[in-house]
Amino acid sequence: MLEELKKEVYEANMLLLQYDLVTFTWGNVSGIDREKGLFVIKPSGVEYGQLAPSDMTVVDLEGNRIEGRYRPSSDTATHAALYRRFPEIGGVAHTHSVWATSWAQAGRDIPCYGTTHADYIYGEVPCVRELTPKEIDEDYEKNTGLLIADEFSLRNIGYLATPAVLCRNHGPFTWGKNAGEAVYHAAVLEKVAKMAALCEWINPGNDPASQNLQDKHYYRKHGEEAYYGQRE
Amino acid sequence: MLEELKKEVYEANMLLLQYDLVTFTWGNVSGIDREKGLFVIKPSGVEYGQLAPSDMTVVDLEGNRIEGRYRPSSDTATHAALYRRFPEIGGVAHTHSVWATSWAQAGRDIPCYGTTHADYIYGEVPCVRELTPKEIDEDYEKNTGLLIADEFSLRNIGYLATPAVLCRNHGPFTWGKNAGEAVYHAAVLEKVAKMAALCEWINPGNDPASQNLQDKHYYRKHGEEAYYGQRE
Amino acid sequence: MLEELKKEVYEANMLLLQYDLVTFTWGNVSGIDREKGLFVIKPSGVEYGQLAPSDMTVVDLEGNRIEGRYRPSSDTATHAALYRRFPEIGGVAHTHSVWATSWAQAGRDIPCYGTTHADYIYGEVPCVRELTPKEIDEDYEKNTGLLIADEFSLRNIGYLATPAVLCRNHGPFTWGKNAGEAVYHAAVLEKVAKMAALCEWINPGNDPASQNLQDKHYYRKHGEEAYYGQRE
Amino acid sequence: MLEELKKEVYEANMLLLQYDLVTFTWGNVSGIDREKGLFVIKPSGVEYGQLAPSDMTVVDLEGNRIEGRYRPSSDTATHAALYRRFPEIGGVAHTHSVWATSWAQAGRDIPCYGTTHADYIYGEVPCVRELTPKEIDEDYEKNTGLLIADEFSLRNIGYLATPAVLCRNHGPFTWGKNAGEAVYHAAVLEKVAKMAALCEWINPGNDPASQNLQDKHYYRKHGEEAYYGQRE
Repeated sequence: MLEELKKEVYEANMLLLQYDLVTFTWGNVSGIDREKGLFVIKPSGVEYGQLAPSDMTVVDLEGNRIEGRYRPSSDTATHAALYRRFPEIGGVAHTHSVWATSWAQAGRDIPCYGTTHADYIYGEVPCVRELTPKEIDEDYEKNTGLLIADEFSLRNIGYLATPAVLCRNHGPFTWGKNAGEAVYHAAVLEKVAKMAALCEWINPGNDPASQNLQDKHYYRKHGEEAYYGQRE
Repeated sequence: MLEELKKEVYEANMLLLQYDLVTFTWGNVSGIDREKGLFVIKPSGVEYGQLAPSDMTVVDLEGNRIEGRYRPSSDTATHAALYRRFPEIGGVAHTHSVWATSWAQAGRDIPCYGTTHADYIYGEVPCVRELTPKEIDEDYEKNTGLLIADEFSLRNIGYLATPAVLCRNHGPFTWGKNAGEAVYHAAVLEKVAKMAALCEWINPGNDPASQNLQDKHYYRKHGEEAYYGQRE
Repeated sequence: MLEELKKEVYEANMLLLQYDLVTFTWGNVSGIDREKGLFVIKPSGVEYGQLAPSDMTVVDLEGNRIEGRYRPSSDTATHAALYRRFPEIGGVAHTHSVWATSWAQAGRDIPCYGTTHADYIYGEVPCVRELTPKEIDEDYEKNTGLLIADEFSLRNIGYLATPAVLCRNHGPFTWGKNAGEAVYHAAVLEKVAKMAALCEWINPGNDPASQNLQDKHYYRKHGEEAYYGQRE
Repeated sequence: MLEELKKEVYEANMLLLQYDLVTFTWGNVSGIDREKGLFVIKPSGVEYGQLAPSDMTVVDLEGNRIEGRYRPSSDTATHAALYRRFPEIGGVAHTHSVWATSWAQAGRDIPCYGTTHADYIYGEVPCVRELTPKEIDEDYEKNTGLLIADEFSLRNIGYLATPAVLCRNHGPFTWGKNAGEAVYHAAVLEKVAKMAALCEWINPGNDPASQNLQDKHYYRKHGEEAYYGQRE
């Protein structure tokens, strides 16, 4: 069942290791088959070195296990909520990568200080508010996903142009057109988070990059007039 | 004598290297056989590359060498005191890992700023006071262990839920159900120590995570209602 | 066509990886054949692991593709402008290396705090002003190169003695007598950028190295009276 | 000539790479044969990957080349001065390692904040004053060595107990009973320098470790009453 997607999700999970984004089992990646309405996700608490593609778990959009011998990631309900609310994404990644998590713990949006950021993420990376005690007690992981989607609506942020978010006191979620791109964005975010912190410490009171420069870099890589890469 | 335990302790010591927690010989791990009242520990000042399981030293709960051609770690009396005072632990690790040691040198408890911390360590990581000149002169290593245990009593901290401590101007000790888990906690602590410092620098005056969130994450991994991992 | 130069440029691009100066495809190196008035540059957005020397693109000094199946780097017009305005350079490198980029995002020149800097870069590393909206809209990459050259003229900085620049909110460009030396300077700059930040944080209000010491180190490595290395 | 010593010095130079203390050719190690009054040092500006033991250069205590096809390190006169003034040392190492160099650029002594420092270096690591223009112009490298030795005399620091120094705006020199120990101390210093900076940033206004604790750790590793390691 969904063997191709399992392989893709497995490989995306292994990329987390290659990009140095996870310690132990602290990360998970999923990918969705939109036609079937099912997604594939890493099992909970199993070490990366012991995983095979066939160990990936298949769940439905409510997060129920449909197939697989392992329980899915404890963050499955967050992934499910994101798939329901962000209909054009194909993959989701969650890590505790050092710099992005430090910004999440600090409770701050990451300003766009340069083109590395603007090339992949439009505008600041939002940090959502803390969950209420009720939201934590009743359905923590699901509410995490809903809060992210609500925050994007509230702030009028496009989820395709800004494929990253920080969960307060927790860590980052990123997404993309598939599992691999979600991980790619996790790696971009980690680098951007590190450089944003360093540049603030080098020049306290530093301003974000101008909107003109942000637009220039974002749109030379994205959209109909993009000219980065091999698209001709 | 205790060959299985020696192998386990040897492997846990080698994990210190793999997790990048030691420089040269600056770390040691032990594991205990509670029935026999003996524990196994790394020899003092021998390089990791030259060690074999059979080189591990067996000592009693007063820290006396019972078997082994090498003198045990110079910190043996600290391990012994921890085993006497914390009856449910099965392994102890000591390192000079960079970030945890920097907090120890700074003399500060590590606040719980996020879920990476709360997943494994309940509440802040305590930093014990400096030893008095008398405590240093008379039985330094033993007094280090006693001070840790006294501090946990005094502050009413549960040693199973908070398996880590910072010794002022020295470095961290961690423990667990066995030698391997003690090292795992040393790796968690190092990551947590790094992210706590970074998040304070990103947002000076930052508050710890809410008690609700800390409880949620700790108890989704620990205790009867845990649902992280493959426990069903 | 220009097979030797393609090989040299390919190898210089791969050095970016070896020196840990690039993430994904975020960097590019070129080398020029001054007699033919053509230069060779990495293609745009192709992963390093998939490149071969024959994939390098040949362009003229206006940045037009002359040969090669791939479109050249999106920063080609910047390289071209630098080759036109700095007639004695033979190679150019651009990266988003973490520390140099953080200084660029911070919008500050890197002061010369020590001999590591003075050995290779004479005086501070200039950070050029932000481009105007018009400069960004009309010919962004070309204007980036022109701005660099204008800044060097304006400040009366010799481009051979100071082979590095920071583009505001973007990242560093470096150059040298050939592609390999351009990359070497990119690695020097990254180290220098890191140590300059650290030393400011260790001692806020720290002064640059004395001009005497800067001159001593620069001239023991460069010019007729140099005595570093194997030149006799 | 001095083949054993050349091998030892070669291997010590290669340890600089293994311990991640050098970039490119920015470091050099020497070892002395006190009976012959000759020392062996790395050649100037030759890459580590191209060196063999037979490439090491033999010089006398004035720094004159006695044997070897390469010119000796440009810092040879500093090594020579240290050997003349510190008669019990057997090896000297110089690096531009990131954290120690950043303290040197910051112009500050490194306070002893913990036992990692106290285990190997007694008291603070001194940072010597800047050389005068005259000292720079007339015999820069020799004067660097003389200034170090003068500073140790002036401050009444024992060079055996404190085997490390920072040269203002330049970088560290370390020494030991032989070339290998000099490099070992360079690695200790780098770790100590990093943790001293981090602990100051975690707790601005932090005090050094108590003299009692410093003495305890230094003397449990050094001198007649040492009990660290396998000495019985």
